[in-house]
Amino acid sequence: MYGAIEAGGTKFVCAVGNDRGDIIDEAQFPTTVPDETMKEVISFFQKHHVKAIGIGSFGPIEVNKDHADYGSITSTPKLTWANYPIVDVMKEMFDVPIGFNTDVNAAALGESFTGAAKGLDSCLYITVGTGIGAGAVVNGSLLQGWSHPEMGHILVRRHPEDPYEGTCPYHKDCLEGLAAGPAIERRWEKKGIELADKQEVWEMEAFYLAQAIMQYMLILSPKRIVMGGGVMKQKQLFPLVRKQVATLLNGYISLPELETFIVPPGLGDHAGITGALMLAKNEVEK
Amino acid sequence: MYGAIEAGGTKFVCAVGNDRGDIIDEAQFPTTVPDETMKEVISFFQKHHVKAIGIGSFGPIEVNKDHADYGSITSTPKLTWANYPIVDVMKEMFDVPIGFNTDVNAAALGESFTGAAKGLDSCLYITVGTGIGAGAVVNGSLLQGWSHPEMGHILVRRHPEDPYEGTCPYHKDCLEGLAAGPAIERRWEKKGIELADKQEVWEMEAFYLAQAIMQYMLILSPKRIVMGGGVMKQKQLFPLVRKQVATLLNGYISLPELETFIVPPGLGDHAGITGALMLAKNEVEK
Ligand SMILES: Nc1ncnc2c1ncn2[C@@H]1O[C@H](COP(=O)(O)OP(=O)(O)O)[C@@H](O)[C@H]1O
Ligand SMILES: Nc1ncnc2c1ncn2[C@@H]1O[C@H](COP(=O)(O)OP(=O)(O)O)[C@@H](O)[C@H]1O
Ligand SMILES: [Zn+2]
Ligand SMILES: [Zn+2]
Repeated sequence: MYGAIEAGGTKFVCAVGNDRGDIIDEAQFPTTVPDETMKEVISFFQKHHVKAIGIGSFGPIEVNKDHADYGSITSTPKLTWANYPIVDVMKEMFDVPIGFNTDVNAAALGESFTGAAKGLDSCLYITVGTGIGAGAVVNGSLLQGWSHPEMGHILVRRHPEDPYEGTCPYHKDCLEGLAAGPAIERRWEKKGIELADKQEVWEMEAFYLAQAIMQYMLILSPKRIVMGGGVMKQKQLFPLVRKQVATLLNGYISLPELETFIVPPGLGDHAGITGALMLAKNEVEK
Repeated sequence: MYGAIEAGGTKFVCAVGNDRGDIIDEAQFPTTVPDETMKEVISFFQKHHVKAIGIGSFGPIEVNKDHADYGSITSTPKLTWANYPIVDVMKEMFDVPIGFNTDVNAAALGESFTGAAKGLDSCLYITVGTGIGAGAVVNGSLLQGWSHPEMGHILVRRHPEDPYEGTCPYHKDCLEGLAAGPAIERRWEKKGIELADKQEVWEMEAFYLAQAIMQYMLILSPKRIVMGGGVMKQKQLFPLVRKQVATLLNGYISLPELETFIVPPGLGDHAGITGALMLAKNEVEK
């Protein structure tokens, strides 16, 4: 049996499951301060016997094992969690291998193992929610180099009718600054869910997301792109994004069938926690 | 001994070398029509005994082995080479394993094996010449998924003082359309080499290249970025690009030391052919 933690900015999901990704027990705890939240997490795993634990975490995090800060959440704006050594804390309590990566890399792994990209050695998972982030599986492994990717902050061209300045504290109008849930809410002065029938909202949203998908395709050439997160619950976005991706690429690369290439998560909201189980499994197997 | 071909739009470089990347014999032939050029290539390799041949080719090419067109140059605007099955042609003449990838992926492999990214399991190689293309090594392997990357055609934001429409037949003002050698030449009505002392030319060029580097960093997180090709012979571009990358990222990710992160090729013009040797070597070893 493996353990899994999806460490998010609003809640922590803990689970225990098998090596096929089936979840046997699961619990959620609100993300408050580390001492409080981690006490819940630890008592959850004290009830189970696991041979490894995988953690998919909000970030930025330190994923390089040869770095002194390996296993920490680093410069997050959630100040009580900044520089929190989550891997060390878990290792001290449970003497088992700990896998550690970003929440979105975990979700990409989950989707490629048993979700919408099942059986593929390459896929990209993007979440469009409170923030925008993406993870990727490349040649069967998680994408990692100097650090983990930070794909939500790429530059996009502004929609000619968009006066909104953007929410990103670093870049103002990067992708996340213009297209994450809070940007939609501030631009249109209503929550995304209340704007469901406003065509222009989703046309503009698709304008930004399609640019991002185009960049990801040209740079990474994934075999499938899985789009999740709260904003993507607006299912009308899928055909709009596919159409604008085709328009932007304009025949330059021979395209896969976009209907089966740009898709919702196969695991629904369980992509991340399933991927965290896989992080645990990988840690034992390597 | 291994064989290597760097198949370019203006010339073919052929070489024979050892598994350390040392080149023992080398020859160049102009790229005319396939029959003519390949006759020269074939007679070069008939003089040598090689146990495998690696080909780094201009593209787009088909790199997926499970595809019927595997080993062909596909939809190139050089019409006599469109759909040319270069791997099959070589295999018919020389009964040895043939490695096949893009010229820029080969260059990334060469630079990571024995050039400016030596010893790193991750790097990106970008050429800024007649076109713009990039290849990457990720977790020690060449980046490949649905197809090979086409990083030269990503979108960039226009410089506010750039009236030039862009050269790209597909996207007009994508990165290649605004920043490859021919775009510089048409915008400023002089060849790049004659513009060496015009500060505004290289400021604008760096403005575009820095955006591309930012996207590559956020999406791929390479451990090093090697910039080659004719335009990068303007060495003043390096500090300008580094500076604008830092400005664009604006402290969002903790940056490596940019001086040693964004660098010229360690192998000069031999990155591609050295990488093609490695493609041959990899083909035997796997
Ligand atoms: N059905 C929906 N339609 C549009 N926007 C939604 C919907 N559900 C959630 N959102 C938006 O998505 C964001 C929350 O994203 P979510 O993925 O649920 O959480 P988080 O990113 O914090 O993990 C909020 O900005 C919210 O307004
Ligand atoms: N020293 C230089 N300074 C500026 N531009 C150059 C220089 N040398 C070549 N170029 C430009 O680079 C382009 C050729 O790129 P190059 O990498 O040499 O060949 P290719 O891309 O065809 O393999 C041309 O547009 C040329 O004007
Ligand atoms: Zn940003
Ligand atoms: Zn283009």
